[in-house]
Amino acid sequence: MTSTRDSQSDDQKPDNPLIAPVSLISILRQIEDGSLTPEQSIQASLERISAHDPAIKAFECVSQNALDEAKSRKGPLAGIGLAIKDVFDTQDLKTECNSPIYHGCTPNADASLVAMSRAAGCSVLGKTVTTEFAFFQPGATCNPHNLDHTPGGSSSGSAAAVAAGMAPLALGTQTGGSVIRPASFCGVAGFKPSAGLLPTVGMKTFSWSLDTAGLFAKGVEDVAYAASVLTGRHMRVDDGQISNPTLGIARTHSWNEANPAYREQFESLVSSLSTFGINLIDIPITDEFIAAFHAHQVIQDYEAKQALCWEYENHPDKLSPLLRETLDFAQTIKPSDYDEARMLADYASQQLDEVFEDVDAIISLSAPGPALKSLASTGSSIFNRTWTLFGLPCINVPGLMSEDCLPLGIQIIGPYMHDHDALLIADMVEKAIQRHLSR
Amino acid sequence: MTSTRDSQSDDQKPDNPLIAPVSLISILRQIEDGSLTPEQSIQASLERISAHDPAIKAFECVSQNALDEAKSRKGPLAGIGLAIKDVFDTQDLKTECNSPIYHGCTPNADASLVAMSRAAGCSVLGKTVTTEFAFFQPGATCNPHNLDHTPGGSSSGSAAAVAAGMAPLALGTQTGGSVIRPASFCGVAGFKPSAGLLPTVGMKTFSWSLDTAGLFAKGVEDVAYAASVLTGRHMRVDDGQISNPTLGIARTHSWNEANPAYREQFESLVSSLSTFGINLIDIPITDEFIAAFHAHQVIQDYEAKQALCWEYENHPDKLSPLLRETLDFAQTIKPSDYDEARMLADYASQQLDEVFEDVDAIISLSAPGPALKSLASTGSSIFNRTWTLFGLPCINVPGLMSEDCLPLGIQIIGPYMHDHDALLIADMVEKAIQRHLSR
Repeated sequence: MTSTRDSQSDDQKPDNPLIAPVSLISILRQIEDGSLTPEQSIQASLERISAHDPAIKAFECVSQNALDEAKSRKGPLAGIGLAIKDVFDTQDLKTECNSPIYHGCTPNADASLVAMSRAAGCSVLGKTVTTEFAFFQPGATCNPHNLDHTPGGSSSGSAAAVAAGMAPLALGTQTGGSVIRPASFCGVAGFKPSAGLLPTVGMKTFSWSLDTAGLFAKGVEDVAYAASVLTGRHMRVDDGQISNPTLGIARTHSWNEANPAYREQFESLVSSLSTFGINLIDIPITDEFIAAFHAHQVIQDYEAKQALCWEYENHPDKLSPLLRETLDFAQTIKPSDYDEARMLADYASQQLDEVFEDVDAIISLSAPGPALKSLASTGSSIFNRTWTLFGLPCINVPGLMSEDCLPLGIQIIGPYMHDHDALLIADMVEKAIQRHLSR
Repeated sequence: MTSTRDSQSDDQKPDNPLIAPVSLISILRQIEDGSLTPEQSIQASLERISAHDPAIKAFECVSQNALDEAKSRKGPLAGIGLAIKDVFDTQDLKTECNSPIYHGCTPNADASLVAMSRAAGCSVLGKTVTTEFAFFQPGATCNPHNLDHTPGGSSSGSAAAVAAGMAPLALGTQTGGSVIRPASFCGVAGFKPSAGLLPTVGMKTFSWSLDTAGLFAKGVEDVAYAASVLTGRHMRVDDGQISNPTLGIARTHSWNEANPAYREQFESLVSSLSTFGINLIDIPITDEFIAAFHAHQVIQDYEAKQALCWEYENHPDKLSPLLRETLDFAQTIKPSDYDEARMLADYASQQLDEVFEDVDAIISLSAPGPALKSLASTGSSIFNRTWTLFGLPCINVPGLMSEDCLPLGIQIIGPYMHDHDALLIADMVEKAIQRHLSR
C-alpha cells in the first residue's frame, strides 16, 4: 500500500501530473555535458509555473528577470532556478511576508542568502507563499499531491514549488518546523542546517534565536549539493558515504499524537535499516527534553513580541487574530520566564550531546502524519521544535507514502555542526527507503 | 590636572559651551514634579541641536515629528528625546548607514528597538552619524570636547549628541568597541548589555554573532534607567546598591599600547577604590584570552562578507577602500578558520567564567587613550573586542579627564546576564571617581 515518489508508474498510485520534482544535480550534469543550457533550465521551470501554479498557488510573484539572470549569472549553480520564501528581502521583487502591512513593499537590498545564491549562479524565479510572518496563519498554497490538502508551513510555497517541478531549489525558514514539515507533506528533501550556517540577515525575524534558513530540493543529494555551494563547506553526498552509522530512534513524548499508519511505516522502515548497514538503538526521552519542548514556545513568543513590536504597535488591526492573540499573550511573558526557558533548553541540549556520543544521528518522524485535508491550518511542529531549539541540523527524507498517496517524511537529526554526517546518513536512509519499498 | 565632567567651573578646565549632557533621570523627575513638560524637554533638545549641531555634526537628519511625538507618546520615557544611530531602521526617517548605496532610502518599518523606545514614550529626535556600516570609515562628527578630535566610532553621532546635551538618550551598536569607545571619548556613560538583551532586529547587520545594541546617556544611572525600561528587567541603580563588590583588574596584553598618562590615572583610581568599599584583585590574562582577541576579527570578517554580500556583489565601487579591502580579504577566510575562531572564543569565555567566580566584575580601560586629534580615524577597539566577543555587559564610566581636557573612560565588564550588578558597580565607580577627583 505504499509507493515511492519515483515509482509513479506503480499501478497502486494514480499518476499525478502535478508531481514532477526535478533533481538539481541532474540539471547541473546536463548543463555540464551540453545537453541543456541554463536558459533552457530556467525556461522549463517557468513553463511548469505557468502551467501549474494557477492550481497550486505556490508563488506570490514570478520574476520577469529570471531568463536574463540565466544568461548572465556564472557559478556552480548557474542554470538553477531558485524559489524564495517571501520573508527574504529581494531588491527586485516585493517582499510582503503574507501580511497586508507590507503590501507592495520592495526592500532596498537582497537578503544575504539571496545575494549569495545569485552570486553562486542561481536565477531567481520568484517569491513563494509563506504563512503570515512565517507563523501559523496559512497562505493560499495547495499541496500538489492533493489540492485539498495543506502543503504544510510556514515555507508552504517553497516546498510545493519543488514538489511540482516548478523550481529545482527553494529557500525556506524554520522557527518550529517550517522547513521539515512542508518538505514532509510535499514529499521533497528539506534541510534545516545547524543554526547560523546559512545567514538570516535580511530575512524577516520572528524569533532570532530560533529562526533558521533552510533549503528544499528533490532529494537529499540535491539539498546537500546546494548547501555545499552556499556554505562553502563540504556537504555533498553524491561523492562520499559514511560507514555503518548508528542511528538513535527518538520516539518522543508526542509519539502517540502521530498517525498510527505513519508510525507503522516508520517501525517497518526502522526494522529494515540494519539490513542496509545502519545500526539502531533507542534513545531516552528525558523530562529535560520535554521541558525544552515546552521552553521553545516561551522563547519564540517572547522574542516575537520584540521582533514584531513595530507591527503590533502600529498595525494591530492588520495582524491575523491568531498572531495578534499570540502577541497579546506574549506581552505577559516575563524576562525571568524567558531566562528560565533558555536555561532549560541549554541543559537539555547538553544532555542530548551525551546521547550523540553513542549515535551518529537521530531518526524520528518529520510530522504527526500526512498533510491534513484542510487549507485552514498548515499542521503542527511538535516533531520539530525541540531540534530547532537546540540548533541541530535536520533533514526531511522523502519516499514513504500514505495509503491515499500523500508523502510521509522521515526526519534525520544530527549533532550541532555535523551537518555533513547527517546528510550522508539521510542519503543512506533515502536509498534504504527506495529499496525497502521495492521489496 | 584632572577635573570631572560635572565641575565645569573648575578653573583648571576651560568652560566648553558644547559640553552639557542632560540627565535622563533628572528630566523624568522634573516632568513628574510638574516643572517640565515633555514638549519642553524635546524643545530643549531641538534647540541644542539647532545651536550646536552645525559645529558638531552628530546628526544625519533631524526629525520634524519630534514635538508631535512628545504630545502623544505615553510611557515611562515620555519626554525623553532619542537620538538613533543611522544603522537602525526608522519608518519615518532615512536610514543610510553612512553609505552612498543607501542614499535616500527609507525603510518600511522601525527596527524593534526603535519601536520599543517609542512604545516606552521616547520621541525620536533624529538619526545620528555612524561610520560606514558601523565599520571604520569615519563620518563627519566632531568631538564636542574638542572639534579637532574624533568622537570615536562607530556610534560617533550618538555619543557626541549626548555629550553636547542634544539628546538625553541615544542608541548605538557595538561589534568591536563601538559603544564603549565613543562614550569614553565623549565623556558619557555607554552601556553595551549582554548579547541579545536589546534586540538587533531591523538594525543593519555587520556580524550577527557580535553586533550588540547599546545605549548612551549622561551617567550610569541614566543608561541603567533606560535599560531597565527597554528590557523590562530591573537594572536601575538609582534605587539600590551592591555591597563590597570585588573587582578584577584586567591589564590586558594590549596594556602597553595605552596612553601612559591614562594608565597612570587608571592606577591612581584603582588604588583609591578600596577606600570606597571596593575590593580589588588582579586577574590573569591567559594565552586563551589573547587567542580569543585575535579570533574576534576572523569571526567579524567572515560574517561581514555574508552580511554585506549584496553590497559587495552589486556596489563594490560605492564601498570605502577600507571596507572593500576588508571584504576582499574576508573572501579568503575559510569556514574551518571561522569554526576554529568560534571554538577558541568559547574556550576562553568558559575560562573567564571561572574568573567571575572570584570577582563580581572586571575593571579596565575603555580605549587606548583620549580621543585622537584626527577626524580620519575613530580609534581602536583593542580594549573592547574580546569582551564583545564573549557577549558580556560592558559599561563606560565617565569622569576622568586628560590634561588637555579630553575624557578618559573606565570600563566595567560584568559576567554574562549579570547586567544589573555590573551597572551597580559602574555606578559605585562613577561616584568614586567624582570623590577621587575632588580630593
